[in-house]
Parts: sequence; structure tokens; C-alpha cells
Amino acid sequence: MRKPVVGIMGPGKKATPQNLSYAYALGKMCAERGYVTLTGGSPLGVMEAALKGARENGGQTLGILPYQSKAEASGYADIVVVTAMMSARNNINVLSSDVVIACGLEAGTLSEIALALKAEKHVILLSENQLGNQFLEQLGTGSLTLAPTPEQAMAVADKLLASPAKIVA
Amino acid sequence: MRKPVVGIMGPGKKATPQNLSYAYALGKMCAERGYVTLTGGSPLGVMEAALKGARENGGQTLGILPYQSKAEASGYADIVVVTAMMSARNNINVLSSDVVIACGLEAGTLSEIALALKAEKHVILLSENQLGNQFLEQLGTGSLTLAPTPEQAMAVADKLLASPAKIVA
Amino acid sequence: MRKPVVGIMGPGKKATPQNLSYAYALGKMCAERGYVTLTGGSPLGVMEAALKGARENGGQTLGILPYQSKAEASGYADIVVVTAMMSARNNINVLSSDVVIACGLEAGTLSEIALALKAEKHVILLSENQLGNQFLEQLGTGSLTLAPTPEQAMAVADKLLASPAKIVA
Amino acid sequence: MRKPVVGIMGPGKKATPQNLSYAYALGKMCAERGYVTLTGGSPLGVMEAALKGARENGGQTLGILPYQSKAEASGYADIVVVTAMMSARNNINVLSSDVVIACGLEAGTLSEIALALKAEKHVILLSENQLGNQFLEQLGTGSLTLAPTPEQAMAVADKLLASPAKIVA
Repeated sequence: MRKPVVGIMGPGKKATPQNLSYAYALGKMCAERGYVTLTGGSPLGVMEAALKGARENGGQTLGILPYQSKAEASGYADIVVVTAMMSARNNINVLSSDVVIACGLEAGTLSEIALALKAEKHVILLSENQLGNQFLEQLGTGSLTLAPTPEQAMAVADKLLASPAKIVA
Repeated sequence: MRKPVVGIMGPGKKATPQNLSYAYALGKMCAERGYVTLTGGSPLGVMEAALKGARENGGQTLGILPYQSKAEASGYADIVVVTAMMSARNNINVLSSDVVIACGLEAGTLSEIALALKAEKHVILLSENQLGNQFLEQLGTGSLTLAPTPEQAMAVADKLLASPAKIVA
Repeated sequence: MRKPVVGIMGPGKKATPQNLSYAYALGKMCAERGYVTLTGGSPLGVMEAALKGARENGGQTLGILPYQSKAEASGYADIVVVTAMMSARNNINVLSSDVVIACGLEAGTLSEIALALKAEKHVILLSENQLGNQFLEQLGTGSLTLAPTPEQAMAVADKLLASPAKIVA
Repeated sequence: MRKPVVGIMGPGKKATPQNLSYAYALGKMCAERGYVTLTGGSPLGVMEAALKGARENGGQTLGILPYQSKAEASGYADIVVVTAMMSARNNINVLSSDVVIACGLEAGTLSEIALALKAEKHVILLSENQLGNQFLEQLGTGSLTLAPTPEQAMAVADKLLASPAKIVA
């Protein structure tokens, strides 16, 4: 009964229109596959767009909130986990995801990518920042895959989730 | 789409047979009402019994794990949140629950009751420890209700969850 | 060069005059013995009184703050550790203390006593709540000592700190 | 009596000889200036080298440990804060530092740089990874300074610490 959990990370206020449309598409694809969509739970940016994409397409959604009250969470999160621990909750986001997809690249998202690599979680990165892509691909040494589109990102996720060894840890 | 979340806390290894049967009954009643059953996620004691009671009766289950890997979680948790922060995750358990039901009373459970009262969450306590019951009822000043049976505990929870003001915070 | 760390826990706003005078006395005695005084770091109640007692008598002080900024810490803390994780930091308070002394007994303090017992730390309790004292002494089964005065509390701490086995864990 | 706290972050097992000699030099310079040296507290890599550099030159040292017991900390840490929260403690490292100096660049260190930028802490980066330096300088937009030597890094830290506005937050 345990479903695969895909964490979709990305900028809040600083999200670009492309980040948002990609995040929505990723949430939708998770819903279609029966994956749970996990985000940081805030009612803005990539977090809300991914949850909305999943919810509007019948998927299950989970928000891991940095704040102290469910009242501050996105209305698109079916289940809200309230951590009250600000950015320290970023580590919970990645440890709770079977695969991490980063959609955009600012400081908070970068911390999640780095924490995921530290925890030996595979990261799929959708970003227009060429310098960042090049640096992180090098740092990730095989544990980070660049993807130019949400469809290609989800194809990598599908493959990883089909391999049980990748999911358990 | 957001369902009420009932946190069921209680001893792991030290759970008594009554703690376990009460926890199973509480999980079952959550399932029947469409509430999500939240526990600390470990594969033993009250945590596993409550998740099992919910799962075997069609309910949704959530485990907030203190450890570093989903491999250490109860198989009855549909969704596992991996915190890797040991007992500090007890605060997340209570903040993520709309109502907290404590089923038994050892050190870990006591910390959850205390953290819930600190966060102004209502606690329902099912315990045979008369001294503890008396002390905690006094400490809780209206925010802690003693219940002699799982049915009476769930009746209190139903009433609290029917009052939206109690759920949001 | 590592000095013993004594954690002094207790109520903030709800501290009684006796809690405050005892906390000051405990901080002073830590200073006289060369122990580091650790508290939750807030600028009020037992936390501030203990730090003040230590500082004004030449002792070293450490505050583990639940908030996000050092600006919110007691001015009597020499070193402020900023956790930004609200009550989840209570677990850090107890894990970082070689001995825990609780001075008073409300919800937050109770959570620290419970977390300390869970982590197998010895707790010394100075409280006028007879019911609470009786319950916690029973729960602690040898790991919790009741003390009627700060002097007696510190005598117990001295003894525990003289036994290296008690300090390391 | 509160001293400035300089956080020195960097690789553990993967530290290069240059990372280690720079970390030792930074700890030594902190000691000479009366700054507290903060690290992640582990007994290896940049963490231990910085603490050793400070301790051997009369400085005060603080380790924020990810593990559950002081027995796992570097012997060069005067005070050990035990978090038991693995990489989530990286956020505490940066929030507790008035200035963050990163000495080397692997996944864990990158998460600390990113969390520091997210929290609007200034970061000084000493790294031979040219691609990483270029990317992070761009991402930091004024809040990250590249430094080629420990002496230049400390000169930037001195300047920041002389400006009270930079320290308080």
C-alpha cells in the first residue's frame, strides 16, 4: 500500500513562469502514475504549483511545512506535516522522498539538492542556470541527472522508482 | 480534501496488552470516520497497533519516523516521513495532529503529552496510571481530557474535530 | 578542557519567585564549580535567572534558543546556539547537558524531564508540585532524584559528574 | 561578554590537505582575535582541524554535533551541543554563526553555504573549485565573498564583525 513519494523542490517567491509550469506538469504526472507528490508545503511558487498539478489530476499530496501552523500551508496539500523548524525541515523533505526533482535553483532549493546528495538520494534537476547545472552535475558524480523537460525528468524518476534498491534507502 | 489528522501516541517496547488493543481500536475508529491516523512510525508497540487498526479497516496512515531510513518504518504506514532527528521528532508528531490521543504513559509518550500542552493542542489520555492521570489533568487545566475507553476517547476527539477553531491551530 | 555542562530547565513566564531564586542559586553554584550553565536561552524566567546567577559569579553560560535570531536571546548567555526549531530544541537542551536540573514544573519543563528520561539522562527535580514529584519519581525509576533545595540538587549533580560513566553518554 | 562566533564549515572525510591547513589557520586566527570557533563537531576533516587550530592557540571552541552522544565529538571542542538530528543540524551551524567561512566544497558544505544564503548570513568561500566559486558568487549576489587565502578570508570576517548590524541577525 506504500506508494512511491516524489519530492518536488523549487523556489517560492522567486519561481519563474517556467518553474511554475514545469512544477504543475510534474505534479500532474505524479498523479497519473499513482506517486505521492511531496513539497515544502508553502502556498506559493513551485511548492504550490506541484501540489496543485497533482491534486487537480487526482493525485495524493503531502506538504512538509517549515512554519508552526497548518493555517500557513497550501490548500492543495492533503496532508500537512508541521515541523516548526524553518529551513532545517529541508532535510526532512529529501529524506522522505524516494526521488528528488528540483525545479529551479535558488538558495533554498540548492540546500535541498545538496542535502539529497549528502544523503545519497538521486536528484533530477530542471534548471536554466547553465553554470549551476554544470557544477552540480560534476559534484553529483552520477547521483544527479540534468533533465531539459518535465517529461524527461519523470522518465528518469520512473526508471529509478522501478528499481527497489533505489527506493528503500 | 484535507482530512482531520488524529495522532495516536504511546509506548513502543513497553506497551501493555491493553495499550495495544486500545491503540488498534482507535486506529479502526479513525478509519471508519475518514480521519488520518498519525503515529511515530516505528514497527512496534502502540505505533504499529494503531497503524494496523487503521490500515486493516481501510483508513489512511502516516508515520513520522525518528530514524534515517524508511526501511525502519512500520509496514502499516502508507506514508512515511523520515526525520532522522530521534526524539526531537516528537514535537512534529503533536504539531501535525489536530487532536492527540495518548494511549499509555512512559517517558516518550509523556514528552509528547507535554509538548502538545505547550503547543496548546488538546490531549486525550487513556492510561491506567492513576497518579499520572491526576497530575496531568491538573497540569492541563482544561486542555487534557481523561478517557477510560477508546470509544469515549474517540467521542471527545469527534467533538473537538467538529469545532473548526480547534483544528486549524 | 571540556567542562561539565549542567542544564537548568524551568518555566519562562510562569516561573514563581522561588523558581527564580533557586535558578539563580544553581547558576551561581555552577560558576563556583567551573561547570558550564546551559539553559533554553530566552530572556525570562528560570532560563535568564540561571544564566544571570552563573554570569554574575564568573561562570560560563550557554543558551540554546528556540527562535531564529540571537537578538531574542538573554543577554546573560555568553554563547547562543540558534536552532529556529521551537520546542523541538528541548531535546537538544537535554542531550547537551551532562546532568539536567529542573527547577519548577510546567508543560515545557515537563517535556524536557521526559525527553531526558527517554535519553537516559539523570534528572534532578526541584518542584513544589507534590503530585508531580510523586509521579515523576515513580516514572524515573532511579534516574530522577527529588531535591528540596538548590544546595541538595547541586550535591547530587556533583556526585553524578564525579562518575565519568554518567557524563559521557 | 558575548564573543563573535565564526562558523568554519568544510568537508569531513573528503577534506584535502589544503582544506585542512586552511581550516587550522582560520581556527588559529579566530583564537588570536577572541572569536569563538564553531564547527560541526566531528572528529575529522575541516571540523577537527579548525577546532584544533583554535584550541592550540588559546581560543574557545564549540561543536554542533549531528550525532547522539558527546563520545562521538572531536576532543578539541570545549563545548559540544548534541543535536542527534544528522544533517538537519547544518541549519543550526549557520544560524549560530555571525559569519560563515566555508573551507572546501562537497555536498554537506554546499548545503551549509546554501542555508546560510537563505538565512541572509554572509558567506566567505575558500575553494579551489572554480566552477563552484563562479556559480555561488553569482547566486550569492553580494552575500558571498570568494577568498583565495585564510588571511584574506579573515580580513573579510573582521570587517563584517566590526559592523554590528551584520552580527545581530
